[in-house]
Amino acid sequence: MEKKDTRAEIIARGTEMISLQGYNATGIDAILKKAGVPKGSFYHYFGSKEDFGLAVIDHFAERYDQRLDTFLKDDEVTPLSRVRNYLESGLARLTQNQCTKGCLIGNLGQELADQNERFRARLDEIFQSWKECFAVCLREAQSTGELAADMDAGVVAGFILSGWEGAILRSKVMRSPQPLQDFIDTIFATVLKKP
Amino acid sequence: MEKKDTRAEIIARGTEMISLQGYNATGIDAILKKAGVPKGSFYHYFGSKEDFGLAVIDHFAERYDQRLDTFLKDDEVTPLSRVRNYLESGLARLTQNQCTKGCLIGNLGQELADQNERFRARLDEIFQSWKECFAVCLREAQSTGELAADMDAGVVAGFILSGWEGAILRSKVMRSPQPLQDFIDTIFATVLKKP
Repeated sequence: MEKKDTRAEIIARGTEMISLQGYNATGIDAILKKAGVPKGSFYHYFGSKEDFGLAVIDHFAERYDQRLDTFLKDDEVTPLSRVRNYLESGLARLTQNQCTKGCLIGNLGQELADQNERFRARLDEIFQSWKECFAVCLREAQSTGELAADMDAGVVAGFILSGWEGAILRSKVMRSPQPLQDFIDTIFATVLKKP
Repeated sequence: MEKKDTRAEIIARGTEMISLQGYNATGIDAILKKAGVPKGSFYHYFGSKEDFGLAVIDHFAERYDQRLDTFLKDDEVTPLSRVRNYLESGLARLTQNQCTKGCLIGNLGQELADQNERFRARLDEIFQSWKECFAVCLREAQSTGELAADMDAGVVAGFILSGWEGAILRSKVMRSPQPLQDFIDTIFATVLKKP
């Protein structure tokens, strides 16, 4: 493999393993074995396990930003439908994964926020940027009259992000997509109800 | 120490350490050291690390049930005020802890639901029982006219639990109680608005 491909392969296998078992429990040797990369070559690609963890987070966040753009900037549907389509697609994905894995950023936030300030600060940035994506969409819904103008779009965006992360956690623990479905039904019947 | 006290001490120190760094990263030796208990005596009290983990969860759940009862069965205030008092007290506690630790059940659910079926099943039971505590309170609010009768109390109870767990996670990552405050403000202005 090319050096670039090897790095990408280590990140891909590492992302999978960290998603399933967390950061602390994922050993470098086990990742290299899965990636089919010789032991000892890890430090050609990453300065430390921490640097590797941050690279995994960056890679995930990049792909996730694409996903958010796909749904929340889809100008062929109304702003509120964009939010609904994003949430429905998340529900479908989680169902396909038998409700395992959850959200990598949520998982790592839960595991590492108290342990490692570099991780915490980076995860915080990502959550803030996701919240802002929702807020932009909600403000557009307000400008087109889909939502009441007096709603604080930033606060509600944070409320959606919290509720969604919590519903993903509960789905993982229940092994059922029901909490995500309940979240979608409730949020559109109440907080995001058309005026 | 008496045998019973020693066991309680190991559970107390273990709960603290697991709250801060997770289950997998918490070693038995480190817990015994903190508890001032000689190495090797662990297996007098617990059959395995897993049994110990489940004992930590049970102990936490017992104390938490008391806490839920204190607030949600407080018949000196209206049902909706009970929910508000519970959430406000959670906000105060998290603020006192500088937004660290989060919720032990949420943390362990995030970390272990995909890894260990005994843990997952026990954590699921606890979440279900918490959800039911909220649902009972919401149904009482419906019967007294504080909430609309056509609301599905079970679904909304799950929505509150999801949103609260997610807000705790976000507070931990942000190092700010703002997500909890936003959750409280939004839920009472929308989903739990008096009819």
